[in-house]
Amino acid sequence: MERPRHQGMAKNTYMRWRLPLVCLLWEVAMIVLFGVFVRFGPEADAHWEEEKQQMNLTSDIENDFYFRYPSFQDVHVMIFVGFGFLMTFLKRYGFGAVGFNFLLAAFGIQWALLMQGWFHSFKSGKILIGVENLINADFCVGSVCIAFGAILGKSSPVQVLIMTLFQVTLFAVNEYILLNLLHVKDAGGSMTIHTFGAYFGLTVARILYRPNLEQSKDKQGSVYHSDLFAIIGTLYLWMYWPSFNSAISEHGDAQHRAAINTYCSLAACVLTTVAFSSMLQKKGKLDMVHIQNATLAGGVAVGTSAEMMLTPYGSLIVGFICGIVSTVGYVYLTPFLESRLHIQDTCGVHNLHGMPGIIGGIVGAITAAAATEDVYGKEGFIKAFDFTGPYQTRTASVQGGFQAAGIVVSLLMAFGGGALVGAILKLPFWGDAADENCFEDDIYWEVPEDEESDVYHMHNPDKPASP
Amino acid sequence: MERPRHQGMAKNTYMRWRLPLVCLLWEVAMIVLFGVFVRFGPEADAHWEEEKQQMNLTSDIENDFYFRYPSFQDVHVMIFVGFGFLMTFLKRYGFGAVGFNFLLAAFGIQWALLMQGWFHSFKSGKILIGVENLINADFCVGSVCIAFGAILGKSSPVQVLIMTLFQVTLFAVNEYILLNLLHVKDAGGSMTIHTFGAYFGLTVARILYRPNLEQSKDKQGSVYHSDLFAIIGTLYLWMYWPSFNSAISEHGDAQHRAAINTYCSLAACVLTTVAFSSMLQKKGKLDMVHIQNATLAGGVAVGTSAEMMLTPYGSLIVGFICGIVSTVGYVYLTPFLESRLHIQDTCGVHNLHGMPGIIGGIVGAITAAAATEDVYGKEGFIKAFDFTGPYQTRTASVQGGFQAAGIVVSLLMAFGGGALVGAILKLPFWGDAADENCFEDDIYWEVPEDEESDVYHMHNPDKPASP
Amino acid sequence: MERPRHQGMAKNTYMRWRLPLVCLLWEVAMIVLFGVFVRFGPEADAHWEEEKQQMNLTSDIENDFYFRYPSFQDVHVMIFVGFGFLMTFLKRYGFGAVGFNFLLAAFGIQWALLMQGWFHSFKSGKILIGVENLINADFCVGSVCIAFGAILGKSSPVQVLIMTLFQVTLFAVNEYILLNLLHVKDAGGSMTIHTFGAYFGLTVARILYRPNLEQSKDKQGSVYHSDLFAIIGTLYLWMYWPSFNSAISEHGDAQHRAAINTYCSLAACVLTTVAFSSMLQKKGKLDMVHIQNATLAGGVAVGTSAEMMLTPYGSLIVGFICGIVSTVGYVYLTPFLESRLHIQDTCGVHNLHGMPGIIGGIVGAITAAAATEDVYGKEGFIKAFDFTGPYQTRTASVQGGFQAAGIVVSLLMAFGGGALVGAILKLPFWGDAADENCFEDDIYWEVPEDEESDVYHMHNPDKPASP
Repeated sequence: MERPRHQGMAKNTYMRWRLPLVCLLWEVAMIVLFGVFVRFGPEADAHWEEEKQQMNLTSDIENDFYFRYPSFQDVHVMIFVGFGFLMTFLKRYGFGAVGFNFLLAAFGIQWALLMQGWFHSFKSGKILIGVENLINADFCVGSVCIAFGAILGKSSPVQVLIMTLFQVTLFAVNEYILLNLLHVKDAGGSMTIHTFGAYFGLTVARILYRPNLEQSKDKQGSVYHSDLFAIIGTLYLWMYWPSFNSAISEHGDAQHRAAINTYCSLAACVLTTVAFSSMLQKKGKLDMVHIQNATLAGGVAVGTSAEMMLTPYGSLIVGFICGIVSTVGYVYLTPFLESRLHIQDTCGVHNLHGMPGIIGGIVGAITAAAATEDVYGKEGFIKAFDFTGPYQTRTASVQGGFQAAGIVVSLLMAFGGGALVGAILKLPFWGDAADENCFEDDIYWEVPEDEESDVYHMHNPDKPASP
Repeated sequence: MERPRHQGMAKNTYMRWRLPLVCLLWEVAMIVLFGVFVRFGPEADAHWEEEKQQMNLTSDIENDFYFRYPSFQDVHVMIFVGFGFLMTFLKRYGFGAVGFNFLLAAFGIQWALLMQGWFHSFKSGKILIGVENLINADFCVGSVCIAFGAILGKSSPVQVLIMTLFQVTLFAVNEYILLNLLHVKDAGGSMTIHTFGAYFGLTVARILYRPNLEQSKDKQGSVYHSDLFAIIGTLYLWMYWPSFNSAISEHGDAQHRAAINTYCSLAACVLTTVAFSSMLQKKGKLDMVHIQNATLAGGVAVGTSAEMMLTPYGSLIVGFICGIVSTVGYVYLTPFLESRLHIQDTCGVHNLHGMPGIIGGIVGAITAAAATEDVYGKEGFIKAFDFTGPYQTRTASVQGGFQAAGIVVSLLMAFGGGALVGAILKLPFWGDAADENCFEDDIYWEVPEDEESDVYHMHNPDKPASP
Repeated sequence: MERPRHQGMAKNTYMRWRLPLVCLLWEVAMIVLFGVFVRFGPEADAHWEEEKQQMNLTSDIENDFYFRYPSFQDVHVMIFVGFGFLMTFLKRYGFGAVGFNFLLAAFGIQWALLMQGWFHSFKSGKILIGVENLINADFCVGSVCIAFGAILGKSSPVQVLIMTLFQVTLFAVNEYILLNLLHVKDAGGSMTIHTFGAYFGLTVARILYRPNLEQSKDKQGSVYHSDLFAIIGTLYLWMYWPSFNSAISEHGDAQHRAAINTYCSLAACVLTTVAFSSMLQKKGKLDMVHIQNATLAGGVAVGTSAEMMLTPYGSLIVGFICGIVSTVGYVYLTPFLESRLHIQDTCGVHNLHGMPGIIGGIVGAITAAAATEDVYGKEGFIKAFDFTGPYQTRTASVQGGFQAAGIVVSLLMAFGGGALVGAILKLPFWGDAADENCFEDDIYWEVPEDEESDVYHMHNPDKPASP
């Protein structure tokens, strides 16, 4: 009777056949599709020597590995350690947070290489991949990690894998519409990654609404050490965000700019987060949830404009505002979303990715619309917005309009896709936990005997050691 | 009565208006100053295309992002994860350690960009920033993180922010004196960062001396898991230290040399730390405090000389000595400083940054004084010490003298500045905790209900659950 | 009587003179040998300016620090944080896991610089070192970290240091035989690092077999938080493994290929690990041990072939298989090894490095044997396998044969060397713990008073606080 965990398992969370089946089926599909479609790009193919001669290159410097790869590794750390550990704040869901994030990302990057490859790297029947594709796959998966934050603790690993399959697909479609059809700039993905990911996840969470979730309320909080694990995630996201926003920018000035703008925005964001975290709490104490999350909003909000001439002080202003918006969101909006709109947003992705993502889209639209040849230089202006080929007559204000359209399209895709996927995930056979078992690793994981109970018994030799 | 934490709060630690006010005020000041002064440097400005044509460059390789940025990211990790987690060893001050370090560094880098910018990157009324400025800002903030280690657990976040403001200012002045007026070499900052930071912090700690600090003695230790969190910080500092010492060295040979020397010194330091940690303890057991800290002394101690021809075996010798000095310091000197000199050095920064910093300055002076054209080559000699322009007649031994002067100047700035800032921080309205509440997150943070107590009650169903 | 830890210390684990003596002796030896033999390579020497003029280079780009250094840093993190934290899963051996790994690696890299230097970088009486040597030293030490995993918790730090000395030596000999005499390709070290390291460690563990180890069985498991620390190690190994396998590949296409192949193999491996972890457990729950370890087998298994034209789908297949093999190994083989072969493999290195290492060697042999000029291009073929000089007549199938020979040689060296070193470590004066004290930090470390016991006493004011 001491451990009420296993009581009342009204739902069947038995994963033994469902989870292996999904994993194996999808991995076999990946192998077949990779076999048919995926090949090394010219930079990675052993024929490079001949390519080099044809291109009259004398040195391998033009094909250097280190002209993107360090950015890839930073982004990679953000996806797996950053997002993974950021979600370990729950006292009894650390395995699920970091483990399911690992699982979804490992599957997602494979599927993203295919989906994004068909749209962007498809040549004579083959997808040719290189380091830049790896970065883009991580980006795509980032949006799934965000959506996962909205349903964390309430979903089975099978549901997570199904969501990943659909969300990666829709991400690639949305990205294609924005980047290729609307010719929109979104280097750090304020729209494609954050806005889309957050509202997709929130829509799914809305459809999976659990009216009796207060039954697992005691497990929704953190404990001292879980908060320290979570801030590892925060810091890696925060530190490497300049790499994220600059990872796929053009070599040269754009990449420097993207890093500097992001750095400035993030720095400002920390101060307003701390200010409002203290101000909004009666006793004036800081809330770890805000420090873990709202400090990152500044990175989200310059995701579109970072490679533009936002300028350092412009970035500080964006970060300043977003630290406030995000913290206020955690204090007032999250409870409102749950009680009125029936959206149970476990990690508060609406505050960290939703609102800052939309702000990022708007800031990007304004910055683009306000661009002039004076600020960018004649050639810099064309290069920054890629006003070449069919777009050579596009003006800055028209570009601003298309940027704004990108926000709307991303939102529509998120709501539509989220509704569809939510409906699929609501089917009763995916093995999600009963309300009283949410936020509890014990459902899907072999959890080791508690250290605390060991110690307890050690110090109570009089009490029998049976649990 | 079970939780004595909230008892006897003689001091007013209420942060609700003070902390937000300071954060917002200073961030607004940053925005205004950035708006007036800070612009993108040529590498990051969209006019780069024109610059490139004027400079007759055909490729963006000459403006490559990856010719400093990986070093920047490593240094960035050291400041936020390295220093932040190194200080989480205290059993109940993990939030404060990593959180206030985050806060001070996020503010400090902005202020450092301005202060260092005015001294070093000021052109026609504007500060032009690039990736190298970001590295230097992190360096500057590193010295504040060090000083923070001396007052960890005994100061309010408002005090920390005030100290950051002043210390960054004084750091920039000291750095200007050393690098520009004395023309001293100090790539890894043995003098500017470590010596200055440590003795500044120790002077502040001396002035804030708390005679009755033994009242919070039970919280000054670590627990098992907090020691594991702390060693995350140690390892990131240790692993990335070669990047730290080489981050702003000249491209080419100097950078390689700085990394290799640092790597060697750190490796040797680990072995003598382990040796002396075991030797100085009666039972011969290792002390985690030494492993967490003294293993890093080797990196501090080659901060000045790493880019010189210290040679690998020279580096091993320096690391060998510093592991011993630092470990002995933790065992004998820290208690002495507290009991006799009334300096309560929470993290032992005197052993990790103070003494090794001075040793680093001295090793740098000797290595410079001993430099010959034979060892460096004719051009290498000039390049290594930048003996050009007004300094082209300076000899190696004169350089050694100036290097030694740099140590003295850094110490004087640290003592003077520390005394001034200590006096300011001693004013009674900054909200620092009473002696019995030091080293306790509960004062400034919303701390989650203990996991352990949950478990405890879970296993004691007979006992009423009221805390 | 409450704490049985200190009871029955039949063995003398007193380290006070033994450990310091070994550390100091060996570090002094390193200083002397470095002094006699080690000098900066031309890239790091201050004479570079003259070298540059002789080579007619106009820019430092040809000597760029960042054309290997980012790979070095990633590998460095894998050795110290990756391996160190991966082994912190034990509930009471976190200090030993991360601390002794730190110690052995810090010593090992110095000795490896010498050993590998004599074999590969020896010119006119001096070992000339650069960044690539640092990477190779980390690689060599990686094999010791692997072997350490097999004896974790059962060996004294003195034993670990002795094993490091011998294993590094034998590693360098084995590496020389494979790379120079057999002219084998093994960029990521499936054979030299993983196969050799694992079977060396397993042989040592066999010889140090403890029949009564079940006396410390209660300490062989994990606790909730220790599993989270361990997965930090897992993730850093997983994320940076593409850097590991590509770190010393030729610039240009080979490096891209190595990273992409490794990335694919690792991604597939996660899905089959999850599938089989769930499938092989009666309740269908996931086992953290599998997620922590078997997900990495895909990186091991492409260690030889990653820089070859394995192709992305080939890599997926390898990862697919290895996730299964490794997970099945943890479930069925580890207990079998212990009960029948008397090999107590604490971390299951046989499943993570042993079998996948051999598979990696075989995959490499097959991929090499199947190589054609059609797939690689004429010049690419020669370059990929370095069929120049004395090897210009070697064919793909002959190369495949030599690759296979490399596996056999590595295994023989591991068994022979492991037997020798195991016999030395069995001598009774190295201070290893008694069976009932294995897997317990308290033997070699000052362990802080338990947090849990504090809390316990705090909540039990009636009970006297004496432990």
